[in-house]
Amino acid sequence: MIIELLIIGNEILIGKTLDTNSNWIAKRIAKYGHKTRRITTIGDNLEEISSAIQEILSRKPDMIITAGGLGPTFDDMTNEGIAKGLGRKLVLNEHGYNSIKKAYERAYEQGIVKLEGMTKERKKMAYMPEGAMPLPNTKGTAPGVKIKENNIPIYILPGVPNEMKTMFRNVILPILKDKQGKFYQKGFIFSEIGESHIAPYVTELEEKYPALWIKTHPRIGLSVEVEISITCFDKENCEEDINKALEKLKQIVKELDGKITKQNI
Amino acid sequence: MIIELLIIGNEILIGKTLDTNSNWIAKRIAKYGHKTRRITTIGDNLEEISSAIQEILSRKPDMIITAGGLGPTFDDMTNEGIAKGLGRKLVLNEHGYNSIKKAYERAYEQGIVKLEGMTKERKKMAYMPEGAMPLPNTKGTAPGVKIKENNIPIYILPGVPNEMKTMFRNVILPILKDKQGKFYQKGFIFSEIGESHIAPYVTELEEKYPALWIKTHPRIGLSVEVEISITCFDKENCEEDINKALEKLKQIVKELDGKITKQNI
Repeated sequence: MIIELLIIGNEILIGKTLDTNSNWIAKRIAKYGHKTRRITTIGDNLEEISSAIQEILSRKPDMIITAGGLGPTFDDMTNEGIAKGLGRKLVLNEHGYNSIKKAYERAYEQGIVKLEGMTKERKKMAYMPEGAMPLPNTKGTAPGVKIKENNIPIYILPGVPNEMKTMFRNVILPILKDKQGKFYQKGFIFSEIGESHIAPYVTELEEKYPALWIKTHPRIGLSVEVEISITCFDKENCEEDINKALEKLKQIVKELDGKITKQNI
Repeated sequence: MIIELLIIGNEILIGKTLDTNSNWIAKRIAKYGHKTRRITTIGDNLEEISSAIQEILSRKPDMIITAGGLGPTFDDMTNEGIAKGLGRKLVLNEHGYNSIKKAYERAYEQGIVKLEGMTKERKKMAYMPEGAMPLPNTKGTAPGVKIKENNIPIYILPGVPNEMKTMFRNVILPILKDKQGKFYQKGFIFSEIGESHIAPYVTELEEKYPALWIKTHPRIGLSVEVEISITCFDKENCEEDINKALEKLKQIVKELDGKITKQNI
């Protein structure tokens, strides 16, 4: 599957919060042989959310995952923005309302929250685009949302990492596994020779094994240490080809008097 | 200024690398009173780079900053993708070529690289969109690129963090400072009361001080600890308003029997 992520939160755009959600999600998408094509990060802004979801839909991915902006304060406006983008009404979702109500009842009984009952702000979290299905939030109160548009499923997850991760594991991971592709990645780190020195051999190997994506990364300024990473999606001979290319590259590094400093990364 | 970031690298999309560049850049953009409107993260793919730069240009930001994809291997294709997106030829930039040549000469003399001279792969880094100005890379070899399109400056930076940061400090920071706006952010953390409990007061204060953006974040699941952060851009009374709202919120937290667990965040 081709998947796009939409990350929503002003705190990311002012650099206050380092977005680790998209990395966590992308890792799992790759693990099960799917591709994250693009990550779009925007603020809590109605127009931005609305236009971003339209743009993503126009690129026709197989799935869209959003994270952030589902909380009780009115500056969290992901549901409203997505409703606007899809041209749907924002309506009170009864299942969502009941789950929020129950979560607060539980939290009140346990003494976790001191305010009883459904306030305007708590009720706000139950407003979802028309046709949405709420996703249970077992680690917090704001439900997630599933909605389909032009047959593309959109999963709207909370931004709080442990809430997002739990919901992802419960709802999205089974789908990734069910439609599992193949993904292989292997690599090593070498020193003594630079990135540009190894580059022609990389090009040669990429021509020989077109399914492989071989990436080199200098690890400090002038390439004193270089990381090499081979990735392959979905192809029948991925594993075999990666191993062959890897052996060849190690041999080349040694022939050029390079030193392999770390195996199996 | 309204600024957009374009982050380029397959390694980010497979979750292998956590992108910290955009956070580092966004922090500095905010510090000098400018706004990061959107961060677009894509892979090393010609079509993606080309269409992403066109989309960003169509939103008319005041500046575009890209990071990643300038290295010597042929799967680094940022310059080619941007040239394609701008409808310009990819041409050998003489200044760029000379700076790369010098960097490798120096590195060879110092024994940092073992291969002498300009190979095809090293020369590749000097190919830039027509009309580009190379930006010196004092921490590595791949020059950055500055180019203007429809009067919007595009700064193309390397993805290796210390190379990117040095180039950013040398080239972009002076511009941010020169066109400096104002940015204020203050906050605190409280416990014992939940996010939804404080939400109506937040709404009230946002109505009273429309220039402020007051954001609450639960720090664990059911909002046992909540971070509150007030941000304000560019307005005359920002600092005064933030201080007033902050005092009011602290007072409310205390009245609701909450506990302030951390000041001045």
